[in-house]
Amino acid sequence: MAVYTDVTAEDLSRFLAGYDIGELLSYKGIAEGVENSNFLVHAGRGHYILTLYERRVAERDLPFFLGLMEHLATRGITCPQPVKNREGKVLGRLAGRPAAIVTFLDGMWIRRPTAAHCAALGAALAQLHLAGAGFPMQRDNALSVAAWRQLYELCRKRAHNVDHHLETLVGAELDALERQWPRGLPQGVIHADLFPDNVFFLGDRLSGLIDFYFACTDTLMYDVAICLNAWCFEPDHSYNVTKGRALLASYAKTRALARQEWDMLPLLARGAALRFLLTRLVDWLDVPAGALVRPKDPREYARKLRFHQKVKSFRDYGVIEP
Amino acid sequence: MAVYTDVTAEDLSRFLAGYDIGELLSYKGIAEGVENSNFLVHAGRGHYILTLYERRVAERDLPFFLGLMEHLATRGITCPQPVKNREGKVLGRLAGRPAAIVTFLDGMWIRRPTAAHCAALGAALAQLHLAGAGFPMQRDNALSVAAWRQLYELCRKRAHNVDHHLETLVGAELDALERQWPRGLPQGVIHADLFPDNVFFLGDRLSGLIDFYFACTDTLMYDVAICLNAWCFEPDHSYNVTKGRALLASYAKTRALARQEWDMLPLLARGAALRFLLTRLVDWLDVPAGALVRPKDPREYARKLRFHQKVKSFRDYGVIEP
Repeated sequence: MAVYTDVTAEDLSRFLAGYDIGELLSYKGIAEGVENSNFLVHAGRGHYILTLYERRVAERDLPFFLGLMEHLATRGITCPQPVKNREGKVLGRLAGRPAAIVTFLDGMWIRRPTAAHCAALGAALAQLHLAGAGFPMQRDNALSVAAWRQLYELCRKRAHNVDHHLETLVGAELDALERQWPRGLPQGVIHADLFPDNVFFLGDRLSGLIDFYFACTDTLMYDVAICLNAWCFEPDHSYNVTKGRALLASYAKTRALARQEWDMLPLLARGAALRFLLTRLVDWLDVPAGALVRPKDPREYARKLRFHQKVKSFRDYGVIEP
Repeated sequence: MAVYTDVTAEDLSRFLAGYDIGELLSYKGIAEGVENSNFLVHAGRGHYILTLYERRVAERDLPFFLGLMEHLATRGITCPQPVKNREGKVLGRLAGRPAAIVTFLDGMWIRRPTAAHCAALGAALAQLHLAGAGFPMQRDNALSVAAWRQLYELCRKRAHNVDHHLETLVGAELDALERQWPRGLPQGVIHADLFPDNVFFLGDRLSGLIDFYFACTDTLMYDVAICLNAWCFEPDHSYNVTKGRALLASYAKTRALARQEWDMLPLLARGAALRFLLTRLVDWLDVPAGALVRPKDPREYARKLRFHQKVKSFRDYGVIEP
């Protein structure tokens, strides 16, 4: 939960005067998101989300994120749409931070997704990948294989405080993935963080995707692997083959997958597990005293990684025929 | 900032089905309030606030708080109005906690109130006191003079960790107030926590009062003294006589004050300062490791208390002629 920066009504009113969305009627800090400060704003013309970008988001990346949301929204993807100010810009400054206003999306994120939700997600992810084609900007994935060793070195000495086997597990996996990481698979815009709390539903209908602040240019199938990790394991950490099959089959129906993409899925799933294991481990070990954010348990992803290490082929994820 | 209890979309949908406010369209945890978990809910019929009452609010007190909001709202006070469910009840249960839905109020709280805001507050407080007459329920003030010694004993041994003079300051003041605390002044419903973050404005117009979860039956002028402490000191802790005069004159214009009430103001202001000094001190010393709430500095109220101790008469607060 997060509001790192407070905004005064006077400052926000002045900021909104630069937009064509009417007068400020109310605003409330939202207890969601861990990277930025978010406010739900009621203005004369409707409801909006105001985001103040905190230091964990690089200012130079903001045109990519905001441009991507605009690109996707005009191509039929339901995602927050950046609102332009009177100068035609989507990025402003408020309370000493870069700030943007985006449209408000109705919908709720699902705490316990079913196979039907996973199927809806698979289709939406494939549509996102298709809609991302033609987006002219590029952004390297700052949290892919090239970045993992540095994260590992940041925390390997203290990893045993979390789990005795973690240093060995991560070290060996890192060696293997650095050697085998696939380079030639289809690339494009990926969301890179499409966890359940970033996907809204109204009833059973997927109503929107949010939080594009990890989006980048990378292997499309890696995005699928991230979702497989985030959506298809049970609270007891066991893999749910029905959910996995639903997600993958639904994705493949919308965007045809090459045989190579299927073949690399187990390796990509290991990489995705390692990526979240590492960032969670760093956050876990680096929580400052008096922190307002409770970090997520890295061991969840250690268990997922061990599952993927035992997978023999993509068929173990529940796919009968690619 | 506070969301202590998470609610699933499924549970909330089921809960809302008991009300006549339409289907659940979205809900977001609000990073405000330290006692309860609050969510901004968008339903088919509009926007609402959902509150889950956490353990710091006694369940037996909820009928008083919710009944009071209803009583005041029907008497022209703009405050959240509890929404009745299909059984005609305002109190339900959700996620294992007592829960209520109230109407959403537009407006913003003012981070840096001016004398004009203080004048608006004075009038609204007097209207609240007048409208509270006739409310049939009673609730003792659990945080008035009778409770202060117990709070003091909870923290006196550790008070020097915050400020070396605190134990002596509080101990002597407590002795004095227990002896002199006025008993015969006009009583009624008081808000008891009308800090700037509980008062909404739209432009210069006061648009609503919120958070009645400390409301009780007590000396009306004590409520004025609480506001004087909360609204009329500058960030450097100096008393602003212009703001104080604005608040008091505006209050007295709406609800005539007896000479005794004026005379007791300095003593009541000392009591109000001591009350917030004590509860802040307890919170400050009792912050659990990993707490999600950052406590407020008790020393602010030690400085205010010292100011009130030097006051010779109500005239020192800026009132020229009562």
